[in-house]
Amino acid sequence: MKNRELIYLDNNATTRIAPEVLEEMLPFFKDLYGNPSSIYRFGGKVHRYIEEAREKVASLIGASADEIIFTSCGSESDNLALKGFCNYFGERSQIITSEVEHPAVRNTARYLKDKGHALVECKVDNVGMLETDIFEECQIDEFTIASFMWANNETGVIFPIDELAAKVKARGGFFHTDAVQAVGKIDIDVKKIPVDMLSLSGHKLHAPKGVGAIYIRKGVKVDPVIHGGHQENGIRAGTENVPLIVGLGKACELASRHLKEENVRVRALRDRLENSLLTSCKGAKLNGNKAHRLPNTTNISFEAIEGESILLHLDENGIAASSGSACTTGSLEPSHVLTAMGVPYTFAHSSTRFSLSRYTTDKEIDSVIAAMPQIVEKLRKLSPFIENAD
Amino acid sequence: MKNRELIYLDNNATTRIAPEVLEEMLPFFKDLYGNPSSIYRFGGKVHRYIEEAREKVASLIGASADEIIFTSCGSESDNLALKGFCNYFGERSQIITSEVEHPAVRNTARYLKDKGHALVECKVDNVGMLETDIFEECQIDEFTIASFMWANNETGVIFPIDELAAKVKARGGFFHTDAVQAVGKIDIDVKKIPVDMLSLSGHKLHAPKGVGAIYIRKGVKVDPVIHGGHQENGIRAGTENVPLIVGLGKACELASRHLKEENVRVRALRDRLENSLLTSCKGAKLNGNKAHRLPNTTNISFEAIEGESILLHLDENGIAASSGSACTTGSLEPSHVLTAMGVPYTFAHSSTRFSLSRYTTDKEIDSVIAAMPQIVEKLRKLSPFIENAD
Repeated sequence: MKNRELIYLDNNATTRIAPEVLEEMLPFFKDLYGNPSSIYRFGGKVHRYIEEAREKVASLIGASADEIIFTSCGSESDNLALKGFCNYFGERSQIITSEVEHPAVRNTARYLKDKGHALVECKVDNVGMLETDIFEECQIDEFTIASFMWANNETGVIFPIDELAAKVKARGGFFHTDAVQAVGKIDIDVKKIPVDMLSLSGHKLHAPKGVGAIYIRKGVKVDPVIHGGHQENGIRAGTENVPLIVGLGKACELASRHLKEENVRVRALRDRLENSLLTSCKGAKLNGNKAHRLPNTTNISFEAIEGESILLHLDENGIAASSGSACTTGSLEPSHVLTAMGVPYTFAHSSTRFSLSRYTTDKEIDSVIAAMPQIVEKLRKLSPFIENAD
Repeated sequence: MKNRELIYLDNNATTRIAPEVLEEMLPFFKDLYGNPSSIYRFGGKVHRYIEEAREKVASLIGASADEIIFTSCGSESDNLALKGFCNYFGERSQIITSEVEHPAVRNTARYLKDKGHALVECKVDNVGMLETDIFEECQIDEFTIASFMWANNETGVIFPIDELAAKVKARGGFFHTDAVQAVGKIDIDVKKIPVDMLSLSGHKLHAPKGVGAIYIRKGVKVDPVIHGGHQENGIRAGTENVPLIVGLGKACELASRHLKEENVRVRALRDRLENSLLTSCKGAKLNGNKAHRLPNTTNISFEAIEGESILLHLDENGIAASSGSACTTGSLEPSHVLTAMGVPYTFAHSSTRFSLSRYTTDKEIDSVIAAMPQIVEKLRKLSPFIENAD
């Protein structure tokens, strides 16, 4: 199987680097290797490109450039938001989050709980949406950080971030959103939505792995997670990863340009795939709120068959999909997201996520639509949970 | 000034990426973009290259592959060592370090001090070497982490890490070394020297910025600094930066291959440069212990003239050097390293660091030797500290 033949439908795990992004980065892997902190021209001129990239990232989410801090990944951004806040405000600081957060928020919040900070994990309903009035019984004050993902990596479900942030802000708390899966896929404008911090990651939007950013609204204070030099306004030490920062800037510029049209095109492809599989595959059931979802994601369970077996059969057919989060692969536990949604065992273990990108074609979707019913049929015959007369 | 004409003598700030490193990385910026945590072949096969890179990094320093954790930079590695240790052992944990550490250790240690951990910063003598019996009055126990840099970034002075680590280990403590400036320049073998943790950085040895590693000896426990997914054995979350990790592996392989011969060749070039400047430039004085130094570094003060002016004049001549650490550029304070060594004000402000690499040529050194005396002469005429009849 050559890569060029691969039907890559695992874009929530990672994305192909846009050729324009690679082209933009290459000079910085060759001649423009100066340290941007250097005072001579060779270093100094590199610094300018970092600032241009910062403008582009800021522009995609409606921020000012000086509110963008570059990090090494979305996980680091999430850690910086939660640990940065709790370490700055000390013992009194507390965290409110949801049961379905990405491990970068979930495990960070639980670590901070172990260190003595109060933690509330709000429940979701059976389509992965937050239950109503989740904050009713929460104590929220100026030492509270609420952290809710913009869009779920496994189901694509979009939380009502505007409403959640407004409620938390109204009671004096701070609000962070892990928008790693949302940025570049849907319209985000921090001028309109009162989030204090927002995490994003390069490799989810056709920039390389190894670069991320965090938006920190002017005036919001956090301790650094990585101390050292003066880089990134003293909030993130370490020599700037110039090529990848430049790449992230370019990827954000491309996302700004393509977002509106791709949102429509990709959504149509996703809907066609989803509708087809739900009707053509026995025991298929959609996971997640259908109305409030990323346009590129569908998560479908196929009753009583193993998700891993589906993936391996898809792999044989040159199709890359996922059983959920790549970050929890290797674990024998079913997805914590589906578990929180109360998805029954025989469905949770068979969940398959297809996540599309702006490189996904009609023809590719045709191939998946053609392949899946046979795979499901074959695996159902092998399933101990199904009477084979079925 | 075109880059190809640049005489780059600031390799302790950052290095040119080896062309072989870039070549090795490129496929991972193009077709091999899979997430190494994925179970399908496209992702899984990427994982193998990470493990190959880990072997190469381990091999350069005499470690086992499973003792190498990839990070985003040397600063992150240093943070992981100190915060990871103190957070794991809690309130009782304490830190011993030196006055001349890189900001990534120095500022991290001081941050931990603010958070309640005891901190001792050991003094250095006037050539930047540690005073004798520094540990005599220190309490060292199993909750102690000592962190001493292998080689100083500003002066190149090499600490007796073997002796320091042995003393700390004998008293039950743990030992970390920031070896960012040493790895790839001098022989390092963690099998022979009892360090528990060792930080290294890609962009100091012809790999790109944005990737580093930490050696953590088997059995040594630290808390992660970046929590989240299961990557890097649960010690460092975040999707692996595959291309740059592969690049770091290749750079370590190249360093292993070239180290011995380049150590000799570069040392000879450095010595020729240093001896020439010390005799041809008025008021020139070497900073740092001459005998125990990196082969590629010389740090020279030129009495009563401004380091920044020297750098700008060098820049006009197409030569990139530094006044010290790029990580402290922008600060008006004189170097904390030279201050700790007791270098007088009129010398400390004029310190100039030339740091060579395996790409430095004889001809380039000739050019610096030709340019510097005139620059120094000119600036001395403008100096308010020198009688101009001089």
